[in-house]
Amino acid sequence: MAFDAIETPFGKVDRIVGGSATYVAYAAGNFIQPIQLVSIVGNDFPEAEMAELRRRGVDLAGVEIVPDQKSFFWSGRYHMDMNTRDTLITDLNVLANFNPTIPDSYQGAEFLMLGNGVPKLQSSVIRQMKKRPKLIVLDTMNFWMETALDDLHEALTLTDVLMVNDSEVRQLTGEFSIVKAAKKILQMGPKYLIVKKGEHGALLFHENHVFFAPALPLEEVFDPTGAGDTFAGGFIGYLAKTKDISFENMKTAIIMGSAMASFCVEKFGPDRLKEVTQKDIDARVQQFVELVQFDIDLV
Amino acid sequence: MAFDAIETPFGKVDRIVGGSATYVAYAAGNFIQPIQLVSIVGNDFPEAEMAELRRRGVDLAGVEIVPDQKSFFWSGRYHMDMNTRDTLITDLNVLANFNPTIPDSYQGAEFLMLGNGVPKLQSSVIRQMKKRPKLIVLDTMNFWMETALDDLHEALTLTDVLMVNDSEVRQLTGEFSIVKAAKKILQMGPKYLIVKKGEHGALLFHENHVFFAPALPLEEVFDPTGAGDTFAGGFIGYLAKTKDISFENMKTAIIMGSAMASFCVEKFGPDRLKEVTQKDIDARVQQFVELVQFDIDLV
Repeated sequence: MAFDAIETPFGKVDRIVGGSATYVAYAAGNFIQPIQLVSIVGNDFPEAEMAELRRRGVDLAGVEIVPDQKSFFWSGRYHMDMNTRDTLITDLNVLANFNPTIPDSYQGAEFLMLGNGVPKLQSSVIRQMKKRPKLIVLDTMNFWMETALDDLHEALTLTDVLMVNDSEVRQLTGEFSIVKAAKKILQMGPKYLIVKKGEHGALLFHENHVFFAPALPLEEVFDPTGAGDTFAGGFIGYLAKTKDISFENMKTAIIMGSAMASFCVEKFGPDRLKEVTQKDIDARVQQFVELVQFDIDLV
Repeated sequence: MAFDAIETPFGKVDRIVGGSATYVAYAAGNFIQPIQLVSIVGNDFPEAEMAELRRRGVDLAGVEIVPDQKSFFWSGRYHMDMNTRDTLITDLNVLANFNPTIPDSYQGAEFLMLGNGVPKLQSSVIRQMKKRPKLIVLDTMNFWMETALDDLHEALTLTDVLMVNDSEVRQLTGEFSIVKAAKKILQMGPKYLIVKKGEHGALLFHENHVFFAPALPLEEVFDPTGAGDTFAGGFIGYLAKTKDISFENMKTAIIMGSAMASFCVEKFGPDRLKEVTQKDIDARVQQFVELVQFDIDLV
C-alpha cells in the first residue's frame, strides 16, 4: 500500500493511492471475500481508502500502521510505448523496516498472493502459515534478481506459481527463448509460470503445456501502473472462488486477470477498478472470448 | 524469387533460394493448386527449384527469365531477438527493371496476393486483371512509406487486405495505438488489416471487430526469413481453397498462416516448407487450437 506520482504521455498525477496490495485487493474482491491483506502504511494513508477497502470485503487486520512515518512513495514516468518507464523517486519510508506478521485470524488461508517485494520477506510470510496454502503465487522483479538472487531462489522453492514479465524471465534464466526459459524456471520450484507481456498478452507454462492469453487491444492505455497486480488479483481471486487449481481452470483465471487489468489501465491508479460492476466484468470477459475464438475444421 | 544470404545467432548460409513469391507459393500450394506465380529471375535461378515448384502445382508462366542478368540478392544479419535485422547487401539485379506482366492464362484468378514490392507495380498488377479478383491482399514495408508513399496510398485504394507489421502500421498512420492506427488504415481503402507481431502473434481488424491470433511459442527460431510471406501464403491459400472471405473464415485463415509460418522458421530458407505434410499441418493447427482454448462460465 503506497502513494504513487505518475506521468504518462496522457497526463500526470502528483499523489494517488497505489501499491501492489491495493491493486490485488481491489481486483480479487470482485471474485471472493474476504481478502486478507498484509501490508504496512504510515500516518498519511487516507482513512477513506481504508474504509473503501473494508466496504469491498478487504480485511485489514494484517495492515500495520506506523504512526510516526510516511507510507512508501514511488514516482515514475512512462515512455510512449507504456511498456517502459523511468523511476524518478523511491522513498521506502515505512517499507524500510517492514517485517510482515500474519495475524492468527489469517491462518488457514488457502490462496496466498505474494506481491513484488523483498524475497526474504516473501519466504517469511510463507513460513508463517501453519498450514501450507493450497496455492502460493509469487511476483518479483529484476531488482531482486540483481540484489537478492539467492533469497529469490529460496522463495521460488516454496512457490507454486511464478508471475513475471518476459524480460524478467530472460534475466532470471539467461535464456532468450521464452520456452527454454520456462523449462528452466519449472525446475526451480514453481510448477506454473505466468509470463506477462503487457499489450502482447500472457503465457502460462505447466509441464509440457502452454496457454496463450491475449491482451485486449485498447485504443488508449491511460496509465499502466498496477496492471500487473490487478492481473494477479483477478487471477488468484477467480481461483479462490472456484477452488480449482487445475491447468484448465488457471487458463480461465488468466482471462479473468487480463479482463481486470484491461480496466485498470483506463484511468489513473485504482480509480477505474472502484467503478466496475459484475456486469462490466462479464461483458469484458465476453470480449476476450470473441477476441480469440475461431473455427477449425481439419480437412 | 531471389537468393538470400542469412546470418542468425544459430548459423549462416551464403546463398539460399528465397523471395516472397517463393515462400507464398510453397505455403499456399498446401491448400490449393495451381498457384499462378508472377516474378522475375536471372540466369542463375536453379532449374531444380523451378521443377520443385512445378511439382507442387506452381504455374510459372508468369515468371520472366532474364538470360544475361542475375537474380535479386539480399543479405542480412538477424539480432538475438530475431525480430530485428540489418540488411548487409541488396543487389537488385533483374528486379531493377521488373515490369510484371500477367499472362492471359492467369486472367480470372479470384485471389491475388501482392508480395512486398514497388507500390506502382502492385497497382499495375491489379489493373492488368480484366475481372477484379474476389480478394486482393497487399504486403508492403517501411521502405515504400519513405520513398513512394503516394503510390502506396494509391495501391491501398485498390486493396482489400493490408498485411504489415506493427511498426509499419504505426509508421503509415503516425498513431502509436494499434487500435487507432487500424481505424485510420480501414479508411485508406483496405476493409481488413492484418498486423503481424512476430512472436507475439497477429491481429485482424475489420469494421469494429478484432481477432487476436497467437504465435506458437517456439523453443528455437532458427531463421525468420520468409515467415511473413509464408504466413501470407497460408492465409490466402486457405481462403482460396474455402472460397469464403467472411471475417469468420479469415480468422481461421490467419491460424493456417500462423501454422505455416511456424514451420518456416524451423530451418534456413524454405527448406522446412518442402518437408511438411498435411498430417504435420493438421497437428500444428491442433496445437494452435489448444494454445488458446479456455472455458468460461460466466457467473
